[in-house]
Amino acid sequence: MHHLIDITDLSMQELQEIIDLALDIIADRPAYTERCKNKTLATLFYEPSTRTRLSFEAAMLELGGNVLGFSDASTSSVTKGESLADTIMTINKFADIIAMRHPKDGAPLVASRVTDIPIINGGDGSHCHPTQTLADLLTIKREMRRLDNLVIGMCGDLKFGRTVHSLTKAMMRYDNIRFVMISPDELRMPEHVLEELREAGIPYTEVRDMESVMPELDILYMTRVQRERFDDPAVYEALKDTYILDAEKMKLAKKNMAVLHPLPRVNEIAVEVDKDPRAAYFREVENGKFMRMALICKLFEWENKRMENPQLVGVEENPAGVKCPNKRCICNSENVPQLMRPVEGEEGAYRCAYCETLVRK
Amino acid sequence: MHHLIDITDLSMQELQEIIDLALDIIADRPAYTERCKNKTLATLFYEPSTRTRLSFEAAMLELGGNVLGFSDASTSSVTKGESLADTIMTINKFADIIAMRHPKDGAPLVASRVTDIPIINGGDGSHCHPTQTLADLLTIKREMRRLDNLVIGMCGDLKFGRTVHSLTKAMMRYDNIRFVMISPDELRMPEHVLEELREAGIPYTEVRDMESVMPELDILYMTRVQRERFDDPAVYEALKDTYILDAEKMKLAKKNMAVLHPLPRVNEIAVEVDKDPRAAYFREVENGKFMRMALICKLFEWENKRMENPQLVGVEENPAGVKCPNKRCICNSENVPQLMRPVEGEEGAYRCAYCETLVRK
Amino acid sequence: MHHLIDITDLSMQELQEIIDLALDIIADRPAYTERCKNKTLATLFYEPSTRTRLSFEAAMLELGGNVLGFSDASTSSVTKGESLADTIMTINKFADIIAMRHPKDGAPLVASRVTDIPIINGGDGSHCHPTQTLADLLTIKREMRRLDNLVIGMCGDLKFGRTVHSLTKAMMRYDNIRFVMISPDELRMPEHVLEELREAGIPYTEVRDMESVMPELDILYMTRVQRERFDDPAVYEALKDTYILDAEKMKLAKKNMAVLHPLPRVNEIAVEVDKDPRAAYFREVENGKFMRMALICKLFEWENKRMENPQLVGVEENPAGVKCPNKRCICNSENVPQLMRPVEGEEGAYRCAYCETLVRK
Repeated sequence: MHHLIDITDLSMQELQEIIDLALDIIADRPAYTERCKNKTLATLFYEPSTRTRLSFEAAMLELGGNVLGFSDASTSSVTKGESLADTIMTINKFADIIAMRHPKDGAPLVASRVTDIPIINGGDGSHCHPTQTLADLLTIKREMRRLDNLVIGMCGDLKFGRTVHSLTKAMMRYDNIRFVMISPDELRMPEHVLEELREAGIPYTEVRDMESVMPELDILYMTRVQRERFDDPAVYEALKDTYILDAEKMKLAKKNMAVLHPLPRVNEIAVEVDKDPRAAYFREVENGKFMRMALICKLFEWENKRMENPQLVGVEENPAGVKCPNKRCICNSENVPQLMRPVEGEEGAYRCAYCETLVRK
Repeated sequence: MHHLIDITDLSMQELQEIIDLALDIIADRPAYTERCKNKTLATLFYEPSTRTRLSFEAAMLELGGNVLGFSDASTSSVTKGESLADTIMTINKFADIIAMRHPKDGAPLVASRVTDIPIINGGDGSHCHPTQTLADLLTIKREMRRLDNLVIGMCGDLKFGRTVHSLTKAMMRYDNIRFVMISPDELRMPEHVLEELREAGIPYTEVRDMESVMPELDILYMTRVQRERFDDPAVYEALKDTYILDAEKMKLAKKNMAVLHPLPRVNEIAVEVDKDPRAAYFREVENGKFMRMALICKLFEWENKRMENPQLVGVEENPAGVKCPNKRCICNSENVPQLMRPVEGEEGAYRCAYCETLVRK
Repeated sequence: MHHLIDITDLSMQELQEIIDLALDIIADRPAYTERCKNKTLATLFYEPSTRTRLSFEAAMLELGGNVLGFSDASTSSVTKGESLADTIMTINKFADIIAMRHPKDGAPLVASRVTDIPIINGGDGSHCHPTQTLADLLTIKREMRRLDNLVIGMCGDLKFGRTVHSLTKAMMRYDNIRFVMISPDELRMPEHVLEELREAGIPYTEVRDMESVMPELDILYMTRVQRERFDDPAVYEALKDTYILDAEKMKLAKKNMAVLHPLPRVNEIAVEVDKDPRAAYFREVENGKFMRMALICKLFEWENKRMENPQLVGVEENPAGVKCPNKRCICNSENVPQLMRPVEGEEGAYRCAYCETLVRK
């Protein structure tokens, strides 16, 4: 069995298999209309996310499978005092695969430990959203015809945007990648991500405005800069237009650059850009569906492969004197053991296996 | 491609094709159980309407197709700052046809301008509800065995009831129709509808009570008279029983008259009438499902026919000095151009293409 | 036609047929994947119950059928002033079978009187929940390989727990059953259930704590003891641990005892018990799905059998001077006749057919 909790659960080989299968599905959709016949996907959305939920449901239906689930925990009874583990053990009897979204970091890891069917993380708090990254990767592959030899610009809120963290982790595994981080000081890419890049010897630059770097980029990954992220509203007001992509700025870019965005877009990409052939963000939506179709097929295929849950490799259960301080971590609301992964070469330091928060004894 | 936004989008010929197909579906349901195999209907209900939503879903499932969507925007994330157009461009990637209900007048027209799949209006604000009219038409056809040579009584709230406006527009296209408008003064049929009848030379009479005209009617279309519509509660109290259909009043009617109602019924038709063979309103529910089945099939069939959106014929984009004043019109909440259709023979007068409100320069 | 409103609607013979079919489905699932092709189940949940709803939906999907419905009446429009009867007559046109949950006692009986498709009660107020009892029965059958010659312990809240009342009624029909009622005084099994046992000559004992009787039990049916049920919180605090099943208490039990629980479990069964092979409550969830599959098949099979609704046998409509006093009974919110069943041998005493409340003239 195999779950998808974090994008790094997938080896380069497995990721390639998923991308290849997605490309095959695109090339020959009729061949897949009965692939998941008599299989059922449960979509358990403990917080609403219509786009992600419908993408999973469309994926399963196009594979000839069935769908059941809930779209909002507040109108569901599963949470009435029942533990997440008990709910998952129940749904386990009704479905063959689960896609879940949950407000708490690490909820899918809890689910994966009590079930014998595959769990797909459809977003857990501010932690991971790996199927968005799958959509991003297929989009880069289809737009640029390659996943290596690329200059990737990430623009906007690089501090809180989990999609840019995931995409960075995913793309740094390919050859000859250079990153350009474009953000206000307040919303810079977190130091631990940059450190990972430096350790791996991946080049990156950090800049404050888009215009100057626009001509270099192969990929421009846009995210939204939210007013609420700034202590000083005046700073936000001074900055906000800098991070709005419009037709004028697009003139500075390469002829075959691709613009990505995880959506929903509010105003960080002007509507006039939609008509530009380089605007790939709605094609990205469809790519997300194709990757989810490929992922579902592969997880069923891999079910018979003996496999250790990569999220649990090297993890210690309840090490003395260590407790995850992250209030949004599932380990602080569900009755589960502390699961801690020692940080290599740093005595007494751990990362929580649920939410990746750094903890020191 | 072809959308259904207003009942008048359909030519008499197209309407006839839909009715004929519905009759064929009724006669031979097994022949249609795989008609929409591998096709997906998205039901996007920005406000709840269980009856209409389930009718669409039942229709698609009986055609062997798939269904996904949401039943209430408040528990959905699609509206979190995202434009309607962006949501529709997203759903476009997940489905082959969309049925939508939206609280704003004109929302389906906005959707139809950004999508390459058919849009069906399942009700937009107080503007249109064309699939209800389709249900009405098939019911008249099946109950009376004809759509011409009829005396049609419309009873109750003729001012605000969008179903009676639509049905009037639809029926006035048939030969030898006479309308009898039965309502309190406060809730008379709007002047612009009556004017249309006069211009077309269609006879109609207006009366205040049902009893006197009952014997003439072939069709009695009931709607509810709501207390909230009256400035003076005393007027409502004095009137309300006049517009309640009961067994006593049914005695005055023709033996083969048919009683229609768009449902839900509250108390405007006494439960005792349900047993009367002339009570056609629950058969009307099933007819609605059959017409939606036929409509879905026909819209797929017509996708390859080159066709102009009838809603956009003769429309001017952002004419100077003209702005739709209707606060419930989608053009006043979504970032879209003003779309104005000049009123023939009246200098400087337009009708908003989204909501049909009359605007003068 | 045949509905399932109360577990006693089913004769011993019919119950046996359902159990046999469930066992056959378990033994040969591929044989049933198209059994309900082109049939549609409507799940009408007027109050949320994710577990029960998803169990019905999984059941229908595994039979190759379709599902539509709503999961929460508050986000649905069906209740906007519309009677339950009208909603059911509408859904009747969209589906072939209905599973419904409703907050009012007796709602499914109202539904069964206006529809010509089978109604399954998925829980009506505090009245009945017969498909849970079906799950319980199949679990006992599969765990113990018999339904007779058993000592059945019921533990916890025996006063308000509708599942223990139903299971008692169902099991007392088998040979050589003995019941052990384990509860605090405040939550004893209601006298009318005990009286039924005495009249039928079925042995039972009542005790206050689990430990003493544990070694005798073949089945231990756990339910939750809720703080809100006690007038005096001190009593609750003193008692609560008595009714928590843990590994320690399990040591006292027979090697092949089976622990059942209708779920959700809060803390009345310690998580450590889950690993005990005698913990049958998650297998019970799956058994619930199999029994719902069998039930759906059987109700379709029985549709052509002429059958009187057992709920209406011997019932008098609006007998003079008798009115159901139960505020949670559907007869006090919906416009329906009083339906009263005279109590045998007791002049002027009736039981309400909707909710079973005892009424005296």
